[in-house]
This record gives sequence, structure tokens and C-alpha cells, in this order.
Amino acid sequence: MTIQDRKLSLPRFSGVLAPVITPFKDDLSPAAELLSKHCQWLLSQGAGLAVFGTNSEANSLNTNEKRQLLDSLCESGIDPNRLMPGTGACALTDAVELTAHAVQLGCAGVLMLPPFYYKGVPDEGLYAFYSEVIQRVASDRLHIYLYHIPPVAQVGINLPLIERLCSDYPETVVGIKDSSGDWEHTQQLNDLGIEDFRVFCGSETFLLQNMQAGGAGCISATANVNPAEIKGLFDHWQSADAEQRQQRLNQIRAIFQSYPMISALKAATGIYSGEPGWMRVRPPLLSLNDEQLQNLRAELEQADFQMPDI
Amino acid sequence: MTIQDRKLSLPRFSGVLAPVITPFKDDLSPAAELLSKHCQWLLSQGAGLAVFGTNSEANSLNTNEKRQLLDSLCESGIDPNRLMPGTGACALTDAVELTAHAVQLGCAGVLMLPPFYYKGVPDEGLYAFYSEVIQRVASDRLHIYLYHIPPVAQVGINLPLIERLCSDYPETVVGIKDSSGDWEHTQQLNDLGIEDFRVFCGSETFLLQNMQAGGAGCISATANVNPAEIKGLFDHWQSADAEQRQQRLNQIRAIFQSYPMISALKAATGIYSGEPGWMRVRPPLLSLNDEQLQNLRAELEQADFQMPDI
Repeated sequence: MTIQDRKLSLPRFSGVLAPVITPFKDDLSPAAELLSKHCQWLLSQGAGLAVFGTNSEANSLNTNEKRQLLDSLCESGIDPNRLMPGTGACALTDAVELTAHAVQLGCAGVLMLPPFYYKGVPDEGLYAFYSEVIQRVASDRLHIYLYHIPPVAQVGINLPLIERLCSDYPETVVGIKDSSGDWEHTQQLNDLGIEDFRVFCGSETFLLQNMQAGGAGCISATANVNPAEIKGLFDHWQSADAEQRQQRLNQIRAIFQSYPMISALKAATGIYSGEPGWMRVRPPLLSLNDEQLQNLRAELEQADFQMPDI
Repeated sequence: MTIQDRKLSLPRFSGVLAPVITPFKDDLSPAAELLSKHCQWLLSQGAGLAVFGTNSEANSLNTNEKRQLLDSLCESGIDPNRLMPGTGACALTDAVELTAHAVQLGCAGVLMLPPFYYKGVPDEGLYAFYSEVIQRVASDRLHIYLYHIPPVAQVGINLPLIERLCSDYPETVVGIKDSSGDWEHTQQLNDLGIEDFRVFCGSETFLLQNMQAGGAGCISATANVNPAEIKGLFDHWQSADAEQRQQRLNQIRAIFQSYPMISALKAATGIYSGEPGWMRVRPPLLSLNDEQLQNLRAELEQADFQMPDI
């Protein structure tokens, strides 16, 4: 297979992806069918599927649970070309196992956290980690999107490290999700000048700016509940109403951000779908309490918020 | 079985424990036999075995690897009454699986990190996590030592949370390792006044102070390489030469602390045992380079440091 063939068969992501929230049964085991249903809805609204992200409580699931969920999604008919599962982990062996499994299932990319237990590790050590994963998975079908989220992971991925990985693995390390919350940093990523390197902002708050800077789109928590409007800005970022669309996205995001984000996304999905399984989170997270739930519902109604056809 | 019987059969830990370093083969898989050998040596020097701690690179191993290592240690004849494996994890299911396995093997305690991916989670969420683990493992044979290490985990275990856990699970939550590096905090733990609650400092630097304050001992990185001298202070903390012993411990620790700690512990163990498997670490950690290795060797020789009979 030539490089050109491979590029045709394994496209790089662009657009809007949701770090898909994970529903739980009453024993806190993952509710695979409900997850598939939500993924189908997200696809119908124009969003891709970054399952197993921070908002998916991915690190609150073990590797077996994630393997089984990924199997279940693919068996239910979800197109693996729309799947970008998070496969980073503290343990090299977990990261390799889940990444290899995603590649085997045909996932078009993986989103990879750095190992995040040890703090202050040198770039050389993070390079060794990513490099070891790439060499062990050993597949032309592997596309890694780096996951930079220092506010949570506390371990970031510095620009020189990104450049080194892209230089050494140009057909494998193909993009990044920047959840630094710092637009200057996202701008710097776009300015790196790496060929076809896909820069996603981690919040739709920066989507218009990111598109203007040459970015690839966004992978954002709120895309779980507001995918069509976010995709609308992605599709029309050069239109006259782009700024107005951005303001509307910001309005909705601000509502969710005023609550514990993951619990609020699940609560809204529960409210609009009528599925109680969405209300559950795994500890250490907590579900919204009754007062928060009532306030969220009221704020969303006041903002004329919808989750159509869910 | 009465509570008294159970207390007799499952003693609480005291003394000096090593967060046992984990040797790797050249493919970075765990070297189980060499680990058993090191554990036997540590026991011979008077140290208990806090395998799967921060210094064990425990979070760089997956749950299967840890299960297998624990099996292997017990099969090799290590007394499970001397084992306090680390079983905390970000995923509830990982923590439950490994904790239940440790209890099944008869380990006299487990050292449990809080889930450490999400930052700024409320105490209520951490309580729910520990509580869920305890209820799922559902064994009178479970003794949990909480693991407070905010400089690394970034998620700490606050005093009110400790009091609540000890109050609700007095026969299960029986102690803590305090790796805050803050003596005032260790003092506060000793002052909580919880019956038979075992407070271990996370560095032998505080061992004399901790014993004077009513603490149970220490669980310290350096106990991997200097167990007999640390145990010496534990045994003789009321002797006239206690302060002199403390100074000697501090001298040795200062040498190791001037290098990346885990890599330096492994390097020294490799140097003194002649086993090259000790030099390896898993990424994101890095082995000492040649210059660091030479300097470490020279500093240890100058300090007249020994690892007798290793």
C-alpha cells in the first residue's frame, strides 16, 4: 500500500467531536446499549466520537471495560472512521493494549493522554512513552492525536516534544487536542507549520478563532449536548453570522460550565432523553443534587436550549 | 470470629516498610523472581513490603501485571502478613479488583491512593470512592492504609475525610501514609486521636519526630536501599543515640534525593547486587545516565554506604 493509498483509506479528522459521556447501570457498570444510542444521535447531529475522553470518565473505567465498550460500539454499527477513542494511560501496557485494540477495530484515530501520575517528568521520558506505544502497536493504521490538558492531567505536552514526535513519526502523530484553555497556546500550535497537523481546540469557545487560524475544529465537552449548533459554526465559520453563532455557543457553554461539567452534561442528556441511566457518575464524581438539577433545567429552558430528536 | 480474634489474626502494621522498587526485564515486563529476591532481602533487613507504591512505578503497571506479581510473591514464600500492596487506582473497578485479590491472598493491609485523574473533586466524591471499594470487597480481612501524597497525586485526603472514613469503617480504615512532606500535617494526623490509627511518615527524615508523636513508623523510598539503618532508628528511637541515627539517615537520603529518586534507588540496587535488571525503568521515567551513575556511586562510597548481603 502506498502512502497515498493509506491516506485515502485512513482520513485525518476534522470538524466537531464529542468526548462522549458514558452512561452507567445502577451497579455503575457501563450501559453499552445506551452509549451506542447516544453515539448514533451524535453522528446524526454531525459530531464525531471521541469516546473515552475526560468527559467520558475514561480514567474511571478500566482497560477491559473500555475494550468491551469499543467492541460493543463497533458491533452496533458505529462507523469506526468516526471513532477517536482515548487510549492514553499511566501504564504503558494499558496504553498499548487499548491502542492496539482500537487500531484492530479500524478506529481512524486515537486521542492519547500522556502518562499522568508522575509530575515534572522530562520531555525525554514522555517521548519514550509515546515512542514505545507507537513501536509496540506497530501499525500503519495508527493515527495518534495528542491530548494536552494540563489543568487536569497536570502533565502537559510541550511544543518541542510535539515537533519531535511529528518529525520522527510523521504518518502516525497527526494532530492534537488543546485543552489548555489558553488561546495563545492553540495559536502557537497552529503556527508550528507541521504539514497537515490537525489542531483541535478543547472548547468551542475558541472554535471561530481556531478555524481562522487554520485549525481543524474542536473536541468539546458541550458537543455532547449541543452538537448541531457547534457543527453549524464549524460549517459556516466564514459566513456573516459566524460571530453571532459563536456568541450563542458561548451562552450555552457558560450554563454548563457553572456546574460540575460532566455531571451537568449527563443531567441534561437524562432530562432531554428521559433515560435515568444518564444521571449516574462513577466516584469520585458526584451527580448533580436536586437543587442543581432544577436550576440547570430552568436555565436551559430560559436559553431555549434543545436536544432535538434525542 | 470475634473482633478480638480478628485483631489477633490480622495485625496492624508498624515499623519500617519499603515501597518496593520493581525490576524489569529487557522488554520492560516485570522481573518477578528478582522482585521476590529483593523482597526477601528487605525482610531480612527488618523492613515490611509496601509493594506497588509510587516508588514501585505501580501506576506504570496495569492491574493484570500487579495481580500476577502479587501471586508470584506469595507463591515464592513471602509472608502475606508483611505485604501492604498499593491498590488505589483512578478506576473504581481496578481498585476493587486488586484490593479483593490482595485480601484473598491474605495481605495484612493495602495502601490506597485516592483516584487521582480529576482534580479538585469534593471530599464527598472521595468518600464515595473509598466507601464503594470497601463495600464491594466486603471482607473483614480488609485493612486499608490511606495514601496521602499531594505532591504527586495532586489529590489529597483531608482530615475531615479521614475522620469520617475511620468513624464509618473503624475496623477497615486503620492507618495512613503521609507523603505530604509537611511535618505539621503528620503531627495533625497523630493528634486526631483515632484509636489505634497507624500514622506512617512518607520519609525517614521525620521518623524520630513521628515516633515521638506516637506514630507507627515510616514507609519510605530509601527503605529500599537503607532498610537496616532506618529500622535501627525505629527500634532505638528512645535511645541516647537516636538523634545521631536520624542524622545518618538524613545524610543517606540527601544523596538519593539529589537524583531522580526512583532511578537512583534502582541504580544503587543494581550497583550493589550486580543485577542489571535493576537499572531499567518504565517510561515516562528515565534511567540515570552514565555521569549520574558515576556520581551516585562515588557519593555512596564516600558516605561509607552499604547494602549488606544483597
